[in-house]
Amino acid sequence: MTVISDLVAALTSEKVLTDPDVTDSYARDRTFLEPGRPLAVVLAETRDDVVTTLRWATGHRVPVVPRGAGTGLAGGATSVEGGVVLALHRMTAIRELSPADEIAVVEPGVITADLDRAAREHGLMYAPDPSSYEISTIGGNLATNAGGLRCVKYGVTRDSTLGLEVVLADGRVMNTGRRTMKGVTGYDLTGLFVGSEGTLGVITAATVRLHRAPSVYPATVAAEFTSLGDAAAAASAVIAAGCRPSLLEMLDRTTLKAIDDWRNIGLEDSTRAMLIAQSDAADGPAVAERMAELCTANGSPFVAVSSSAQEAQELIGVRRMAYQAMERLGKCLVEDVCVPRSALPYMIEKIEAVAARHDVLIATAAHAGDGNLHPVFIFDHGLAEPPPSVWTAADEVFREALEVGGTLTGEHGVGLLKRRWLSLEAGPVTEEIQRGIKRVFDPLGILNPGKAI
Amino acid sequence: MTVISDLVAALTSEKVLTDPDVTDSYARDRTFLEPGRPLAVVLAETRDDVVTTLRWATGHRVPVVPRGAGTGLAGGATSVEGGVVLALHRMTAIRELSPADEIAVVEPGVITADLDRAAREHGLMYAPDPSSYEISTIGGNLATNAGGLRCVKYGVTRDSTLGLEVVLADGRVMNTGRRTMKGVTGYDLTGLFVGSEGTLGVITAATVRLHRAPSVYPATVAAEFTSLGDAAAAASAVIAAGCRPSLLEMLDRTTLKAIDDWRNIGLEDSTRAMLIAQSDAADGPAVAERMAELCTANGSPFVAVSSSAQEAQELIGVRRMAYQAMERLGKCLVEDVCVPRSALPYMIEKIEAVAARHDVLIATAAHAGDGNLHPVFIFDHGLAEPPPSVWTAADEVFREALEVGGTLTGEHGVGLLKRRWLSLEAGPVTEEIQRGIKRVFDPLGILNPGKAI
Repeated sequence: MTVISDLVAALTSEKVLTDPDVTDSYARDRTFLEPGRPLAVVLAETRDDVVTTLRWATGHRVPVVPRGAGTGLAGGATSVEGGVVLALHRMTAIRELSPADEIAVVEPGVITADLDRAAREHGLMYAPDPSSYEISTIGGNLATNAGGLRCVKYGVTRDSTLGLEVVLADGRVMNTGRRTMKGVTGYDLTGLFVGSEGTLGVITAATVRLHRAPSVYPATVAAEFTSLGDAAAAASAVIAAGCRPSLLEMLDRTTLKAIDDWRNIGLEDSTRAMLIAQSDAADGPAVAERMAELCTANGSPFVAVSSSAQEAQELIGVRRMAYQAMERLGKCLVEDVCVPRSALPYMIEKIEAVAARHDVLIATAAHAGDGNLHPVFIFDHGLAEPPPSVWTAADEVFREALEVGGTLTGEHGVGLLKRRWLSLEAGPVTEEIQRGIKRVFDPLGILNPGKAI
Repeated sequence: MTVISDLVAALTSEKVLTDPDVTDSYARDRTFLEPGRPLAVVLAETRDDVVTTLRWATGHRVPVVPRGAGTGLAGGATSVEGGVVLALHRMTAIRELSPADEIAVVEPGVITADLDRAAREHGLMYAPDPSSYEISTIGGNLATNAGGLRCVKYGVTRDSTLGLEVVLADGRVMNTGRRTMKGVTGYDLTGLFVGSEGTLGVITAATVRLHRAPSVYPATVAAEFTSLGDAAAAASAVIAAGCRPSLLEMLDRTTLKAIDDWRNIGLEDSTRAMLIAQSDAADGPAVAERMAELCTANGSPFVAVSSSAQEAQELIGVRRMAYQAMERLGKCLVEDVCVPRSALPYMIEKIEAVAARHDVLIATAAHAGDGNLHPVFIFDHGLAEPPPSVWTAADEVFREALEVGGTLTGEHGVGLLKRRWLSLEAGPVTEEIQRGIKRVFDPLGILNPGKAI
């Protein structure tokens, strides 16, 4: 522990936690993965705390696992044995918010929805909104290149990130990118850090772009379907018709049932799937009517176009609850495959077939407008990890997604959970290049070892 | 020349040009920069031609300068002494265009506007549209992360690029990215290649995202101003009011005069600047009226909202002619600074002051909605390169842009032209990291040496 005492001396014992009962609560993310026991947890409050921690870690060759709010679903923040967890949730300053330039400079611990609310005071919004945005941090969103419900129209976290302040593994500080809308001076290091899951450096501030917020609550459609295939076909039809929704979410029966059991949403027996669509365009109400017609044309027996913002907000609230509702049913292995939009109905069919073949409970929620599916494999609370049937089923779904030109992960990251499938997607040349890039930033390999690449 | 004979043997003399009179025409881009004499020019027709060339170049340690249509404005494709120019303009296949997935897979030699036209046959468009899009190639656009007129709403080339097929310096082929709207498997190599100016690899195909094309021609506003400052203030007001234009261009008197002298556009004596704005939103005509009001409120004595698509198209055509018109006045040193939107009026003032102080002719066109300015320093046709006063003036403009949080280059790239200012923006840590990344991809340094970083 003499190694740790240096760090405590530099940062004070207020910021360096070593009691195992306490550090344990910073060792996991939202997955079932069993963490290694950390030597300590650093509660960083400033960029200098991050610099001090990383200099110390480099000096002593101690692995560092950066961490936001621990809401990740892929094991990206799972701690490693003998390492230090560098927790950034106390760095919560919005350093700047410029309505004129439509940008904000924020620290990594800012809660995603808090930034959005701060922007809305100026008629703006922060667009990326993972379902967990009330509890997730910007730092975690940057690490995984988080998407969300609105990204079908506004893009993912990388699309909203203009520049970063980063501390490298050896404690050097680097600024990437810019405050401007465009720029091509040098390689795109900003884009490289976004989605790098804490393996290249620790982000201590981000300059993000804000969007003009719609002046009225988006026009909202909710459609019930008697089959998941019909719902997927309707989602494809909405995209193909050029409706350009600002949200297009799909929930299957298992997901709806889990929500209904928890919060009683009055689910009908015949309802096998639901589609929720929004348009925040100037002609939103007309677009909503068109989307409703397409749902009816694709077999929906019940479609409602919402006239009340409150009703619509409640509906979106239900959608955001999906994962918590599923967690009540059992432990969850969450997939995050993304396929070309036109392959959505095909993937739905395959997922249902895989579930039946292996007798596995799969609840599927999807950002249907992006082709991004979250099949959640649910297994018994009493088990430490998924039984073989779940791993086999998950493997088949991954392979199907890659087969149709999809990707393993749309917005959650690779973390620990998907590393075993990585080479199926990446190929040997890409893997070699990625390892080479890792060495440029972190030659000793102390940053989040074993994750992402 | 025995070195070249190997290459000729592998590719045939049809594809390997060595006659200096011929190769000379592939040695320059659109700048005044004097190129080194190339050993040969390869006219690649397939990915395998690129592989063959790069394997040969690696084997013989010969520098390779990739080249699209040579329309660059920063010297990125200027040939180097004793190197080979790898011309990609014959690789013109649109390998795939999927309306259902709203993507296309294209080779680097496709003319930008040709891809846009192909997309429009399906109700889609390819959004990035540099002014030169009738003569520029997708490959060149990717190399510089080109912007254009529509990028104020639709983003730059990187924002439309989902995946790439790349040949590395040693001839290995790598695929990056995906066909899906989202994805975070591994580091963002796609984004890294876009804007890397041919220094990391040679792009042989790109999977690009298409956007839904507006169903009617965008509502268009043209406003004349008696001062450039008023025009800049009006542009800022349009953005601040949340109009979300799909195009917002500004031209100064010198630019307008050059166009008028060439094509007679009926320029009034009192007109010192013009703003052109478009909205392709569903409520475009109403937005156009609002933008027109803002121009009037900011001092425009003459504002026209166009009722005819043809008239508006002619107007945009005038804008696209700006650079050709300026070239009639003299040789051009083109800057491409980009500043935070709110700093646009300030930068305009500084540019005018710099021009007066050094008695230099500067014509400024700007993508005003992005804060991206193109001050063009015009000097005598008889001079081989800019006189000292032009370099001094250019230096001052660069420094002013950086001072207000701007960047050296919004969309043209660093090339050769801006390397001397690079360290002002990047800083030593970033420069070291960028050189490290370069070595991962191209350890022998044969790809476009001396450019970009």
